[in-house]
Amino acid sequence: MNSKLKESIENSRRITEAELTRYIPCLEAECPTLAAAEEYMLSSGGKRVRPFLTLEFCRALGGDEKKALAFACAIEMVHTYSLIHDDLPCMDDSDMRRGRPSCHKKFDEATAVLAGDGLLTDAFGVCASNTSVPAEGIAEAVCVLSAFAGSTGMVGGQVMDLAPAEPDADGYMKLCALKTGGLISAAALLGCIAAGADEKAKNAASCYAMNIGLAFQITDDLLDAEKGDEDEGKTTILSFMSKEAARDYAARLTDAAKQALVDIPDPEVLSEFADYLLSRVV
Amino acid sequence: MNSKLKESIENSRRITEAELTRYIPCLEAECPTLAAAEEYMLSSGGKRVRPFLTLEFCRALGGDEKKALAFACAIEMVHTYSLIHDDLPCMDDSDMRRGRPSCHKKFDEATAVLAGDGLLTDAFGVCASNTSVPAEGIAEAVCVLSAFAGSTGMVGGQVMDLAPAEPDADGYMKLCALKTGGLISAAALLGCIAAGADEKAKNAASCYAMNIGLAFQITDDLLDAEKGDEDEGKTTILSFMSKEAARDYAARLTDAAKQALVDIPDPEVLSEFADYLLSRVV
Repeated sequence: MNSKLKESIENSRRITEAELTRYIPCLEAECPTLAAAEEYMLSSGGKRVRPFLTLEFCRALGGDEKKALAFACAIEMVHTYSLIHDDLPCMDDSDMRRGRPSCHKKFDEATAVLAGDGLLTDAFGVCASNTSVPAEGIAEAVCVLSAFAGSTGMVGGQVMDLAPAEPDADGYMKLCALKTGGLISAAALLGCIAAGADEKAKNAASCYAMNIGLAFQITDDLLDAEKGDEDEGKTTILSFMSKEAARDYAARLTDAAKQALVDIPDPEVLSEFADYLLSRVV
Repeated sequence: MNSKLKESIENSRRITEAELTRYIPCLEAECPTLAAAEEYMLSSGGKRVRPFLTLEFCRALGGDEKKALAFACAIEMVHTYSLIHDDLPCMDDSDMRRGRPSCHKKFDEATAVLAGDGLLTDAFGVCASNTSVPAEGIAEAVCVLSAFAGSTGMVGGQVMDLAPAEPDADGYMKLCALKTGGLISAAALLGCIAAGADEKAKNAASCYAMNIGLAFQITDDLLDAEKGDEDEGKTTILSFMSKEAARDYAARLTDAAKQALVDIPDPEVLSEFADYLLSRVV
């Protein structure tokens, strides 16, 4: 990984995690069980890709990353809630998450449902409390986060993922666009809003994010297949094409993402990041 | 019920339900199962107490009720999500809700979790899309809704309700303040924000809402006891005091609520509403 990219990812992770730990103590006095479950999941590591994108888009557009920090935390809280609910017995029924017991295994199912509900609800408060952004930007950020995470976004994608109907490649890509691409797009757009960017930059961010989101999903499917991690009967991109064709597809999406960056003043790190995601499989 | 109060409740219900039905079609094309589950629960009736409070506080402060309509819908969506998740097998495990099968019985558990997640997420978008309110008001409304519905509000109250520790009367009232009072307070405050009210009016609204919220819970406990609807082992106000003492307590809370209305320009309907809630048990 390019050193400037590595530094940006590490820096984004550090400041996001530091800010997220400030959120927990407010809960502890009121509701220790809930605080413990939320902290367990928020502190479980992960790549913090979404906060990185929020902070890096703000920087790439000439904004101070601090302006985007509350938005980055809100995005990570929404992502964390989605992992908790996805792991529930009635959903993917996963006992493990990032090498540790999943939330409902470590605590119990009711606590897991409520920790997810709490993180999702609180995320909007964290988003709307961003005092570095004018009120118009706050209202826009809340609308973006709601639209990409909600019923016609990530939640809708999860419903499609659970539906028994066998999709075609286009249907699978649409599902991925909603389920994975949605929150990645929201992350990029929130960075633009924090930087006070114009519509042209926001369109570029949307296009970049949707393309790397899909490339990310395809490369994940390829990596799972290489590790022999395939879940039998689970739809992946390899249900519809060969590994070689999937790699080519991911490369084309990566190119499209990088081309979209022409409207971003300082796109180097974001361009490197798109290449890095692809490099995991080529 | 006083005819002016009745008219206001009916009018609030009518315009809220009409506005809520506009929300569903956007979902149907994208995700019909999710749309069906959300519509099933949104259209399941109920008293629509929270939207009434949002709209009536706006009116009582001299605002046009239309300014508060998006907020009223957002509050009802959050209330509806909370009912769906409360009914889940791992929570209260209720097969029925308002005389119909609960969401996870009508559909399935995964759809119920996701319909709740979708309504909660979408509610913040509906709230933030209120174009009748200046952006500062939107940001404030999102913070209020998040705070009263989130981990230190309604979700926290639900966690306390599921915890096995036997509370005392004060602990039970604190739980009710979070679980029932929180969203009622948010409803009243959102009406104030829509009307552009000052801090004095907001304090009055908070005080009124918290007191009627607690009185509402106590009178509900009394009504359940009269109907023989008590859930064995479930904590209610009657776990701590006699029926007579509970009635007196509810009457004192109602008085406190009405006294708070001295700072509201046109408090008649709100005052009648507090009396009406109490009248159910005296």
